[in-house]
Amino acid sequence: MTPRFTALDTLDIRFPTSRDLDGSDAMNPDPDYSAAYVIVRTDEPGGHEGHGFAFTIGRGNDIQAAAIRALAPYLVGLPVPATLDDLGGLWRTLVHDSQLRWLGPEKGVMHMAISAVVNALWDLRAKREGKPVWRLLAELSPEEVVALVDFRYLSDALTPDEALAILRRAEPGKAERTARLLADGYPAYTTSPGWLGYDDDKLRRLCKEAIADGFTQIKLKVGADLADDIRRMRVAREVCGPDMRIAVDANQRWDVATAIAWIRELAPFDPWWVEEPTSPDDIGAHATIARAVSPIRVATGEHVHNRVMFKQFLQNRALSFLQLDAARVAGVNENIAILLLAAKFGVPVCPHAGGVGLCELVQHLSMFDYVAVSGTMEDRVIEYVDHLHEHFIDPVVIRDGRYVTPTTPGFGATMHPRSLAEHAYPDGLVWAVPA
Amino acid sequence: MTPRFTALDTLDIRFPTSRDLDGSDAMNPDPDYSAAYVIVRTDEPGGHEGHGFAFTIGRGNDIQAAAIRALAPYLVGLPVPATLDDLGGLWRTLVHDSQLRWLGPEKGVMHMAISAVVNALWDLRAKREGKPVWRLLAELSPEEVVALVDFRYLSDALTPDEALAILRRAEPGKAERTARLLADGYPAYTTSPGWLGYDDDKLRRLCKEAIADGFTQIKLKVGADLADDIRRMRVAREVCGPDMRIAVDANQRWDVATAIAWIRELAPFDPWWVEEPTSPDDIGAHATIARAVSPIRVATGEHVHNRVMFKQFLQNRALSFLQLDAARVAGVNENIAILLLAAKFGVPVCPHAGGVGLCELVQHLSMFDYVAVSGTMEDRVIEYVDHLHEHFIDPVVIRDGRYVTPTTPGFGATMHPRSLAEHAYPDGLVWAVPA
Repeated sequence: MTPRFTALDTLDIRFPTSRDLDGSDAMNPDPDYSAAYVIVRTDEPGGHEGHGFAFTIGRGNDIQAAAIRALAPYLVGLPVPATLDDLGGLWRTLVHDSQLRWLGPEKGVMHMAISAVVNALWDLRAKREGKPVWRLLAELSPEEVVALVDFRYLSDALTPDEALAILRRAEPGKAERTARLLADGYPAYTTSPGWLGYDDDKLRRLCKEAIADGFTQIKLKVGADLADDIRRMRVAREVCGPDMRIAVDANQRWDVATAIAWIRELAPFDPWWVEEPTSPDDIGAHATIARAVSPIRVATGEHVHNRVMFKQFLQNRALSFLQLDAARVAGVNENIAILLLAAKFGVPVCPHAGGVGLCELVQHLSMFDYVAVSGTMEDRVIEYVDHLHEHFIDPVVIRDGRYVTPTTPGFGATMHPRSLAEHAYPDGLVWAVPA
Repeated sequence: MTPRFTALDTLDIRFPTSRDLDGSDAMNPDPDYSAAYVIVRTDEPGGHEGHGFAFTIGRGNDIQAAAIRALAPYLVGLPVPATLDDLGGLWRTLVHDSQLRWLGPEKGVMHMAISAVVNALWDLRAKREGKPVWRLLAELSPEEVVALVDFRYLSDALTPDEALAILRRAEPGKAERTARLLADGYPAYTTSPGWLGYDDDKLRRLCKEAIADGFTQIKLKVGADLADDIRRMRVAREVCGPDMRIAVDANQRWDVATAIAWIRELAPFDPWWVEEPTSPDDIGAHATIARAVSPIRVATGEHVHNRVMFKQFLQNRALSFLQLDAARVAGVNENIAILLLAAKFGVPVCPHAGGVGLCELVQHLSMFDYVAVSGTMEDRVIEYVDHLHEHFIDPVVIRDGRYVTPTTPGFGATMHPRSLAEHAYPDGLVWAVPA
């Protein structure tokens, strides 16, 4: 009997992070980090579950879960092996559904729902094959990788043949890079010191901890008040010294002119990049800002909603660091397209992470990129935030400022059953009992 | 006692339009035109209700309704008059909510939900003031109009002062234009002949009807098969003669190279515009296509998700006709921003309509534009599709190929209670009884 998909269960999981101002920034003062969580089930005797989620910051997580639930009819009843062997095909079915696509197209709640399901299927496939996702992807042939990507709307920047050429160029040295990755891990940077809600003493203490922990890059949230930003940037630079890379992140707070003026005020403290200076939809504004504040470089991506937008950011030299997100675009498949685009344009990918479970996911994408796409870690770092990892069965491990390469099968997105139960909204223990 | 908002009721309303291939195009072969419908209620004795909706094409309409429902806590309990007098303030509250905005930001399901609520509030305000929305807007002062607009992310293209100047320039002649509008209505074009699912005989017959009905522009869906498109375009041109404007609409079907090649094949039949040649997110691709196929002009907008995207389309000369949608961006307020941007760049606005109830809504926006913003109808037309108007209490009226200017109070979005009951999904009569 061919095993089939039997269910796509969704859970509304929320963490009351706003109670401690963790994750506070200029646009998100009070996030409750949340996961619209999905468990893909099959009828395979003794078989695995696929776990995935869309990340949100609180209110609306129920809408996100409803959108994931709407995808169940597209999966339930399909044969498991054939579906997992053609996730490119399933991706197209979900993304191009003739009625659901109106809700995007390819953006927002519906697209994030697809990310949750696609990532859960990759988790399931990797568990079945007994490999972490990064290795599963890295061991695919260039042809198999290209078949995962939808090149619609990309051909003016990247054709399937060009993608194949990029992947083939990376074939030599894969074994060596895999060995190096397993030995040394992948560079991380930490955002933990820099939340806006923290006072200077806490900032100072956390900067020292970042140095002691071996990080070579930190990130500060900015954009709410210029005088505060200058003071905090001075504190951070004093504590960290001239060699630490200090990125700043405005979380979309500014218009073009404000962004340029504000960044110039921070320039004396040598910011490594300025992140999300303005609307994530505004390719032209990013390009203008990038030209004006050079040599300070612009980074963005966590809210860039699909490969077509990333293509334009790259075509317009509107970003110098591409910050893909594991659960904003439609999952692994679309992120492979984005990694290939970045490789084509020679732009380093430095994934967005933090939130809940995003570190666990994105490490696989960067590690696949290193082994099989760009072939380099130069100027590449994965964001690290030390929140909420305890809820995952296979949490990320950071050592000497680097992600330790995961070796357990799957995508790392599986939460402890107890965490799921306690944080279920609104009936879980954490929410039912007032703080 | 100050009246307050008491409820925001949502309904999942779907019409089985896929049964007749009405609305079929290259990307949407089987739409079931649907409305995630909202009724805003107050405790005002004998008071009005505000009606609005987000338009979808079937599956997912329940998700859209859930997203609208999530906005109830932001409205229920607020005082009615003060809220309606500051819809710019309420718009900012909804769009910039620190947690909900993660679900967009400013795009997709959550943004469309805001459009439904904002438009319902305009409906309510207009009913309370005893005016159609177009007149209510046209009678606001330039300062009041500017206060409705969120200029965040627009200032590199349009400042509040520039917007004021545009509106003040239109002040003289308002009375004269209002009179002319009431006498002559506003030009329409018809998409009814051109759906892909219709055979040549039906196309021919409907073209003749369009001429007889006084239309001077029709639109044909294209993009599925080039030979078919050439044949259908030839039929239409033969029947309509050289003076009829025949627009073509590819509904996002093409990549850049395909678009350019395909449009050139249709060029001998003199298409008036080519609509949605590629991804609605792809500003650069539209600009490239526009340069390559000139003098044929590019139109887009029904899937352009917010004012920041429209700003870039205009800055890049990527469209020559701006097709705003009443319920894709966040309602009247954001569409005012878009009308002001279009006026600044001198681009005609030709709204997207059809679906269910979109004609009823957009006529107010174009008429406001004529009286108080651009001051002209030159090269401006509102799409008209003759479907589903019978479900509205104040349906649009078309006479001699023009929209008859509505004079009844409100936004025209109110459906008959019986239509709402019969088309409720999945329990209404239309859905509960198999076709």
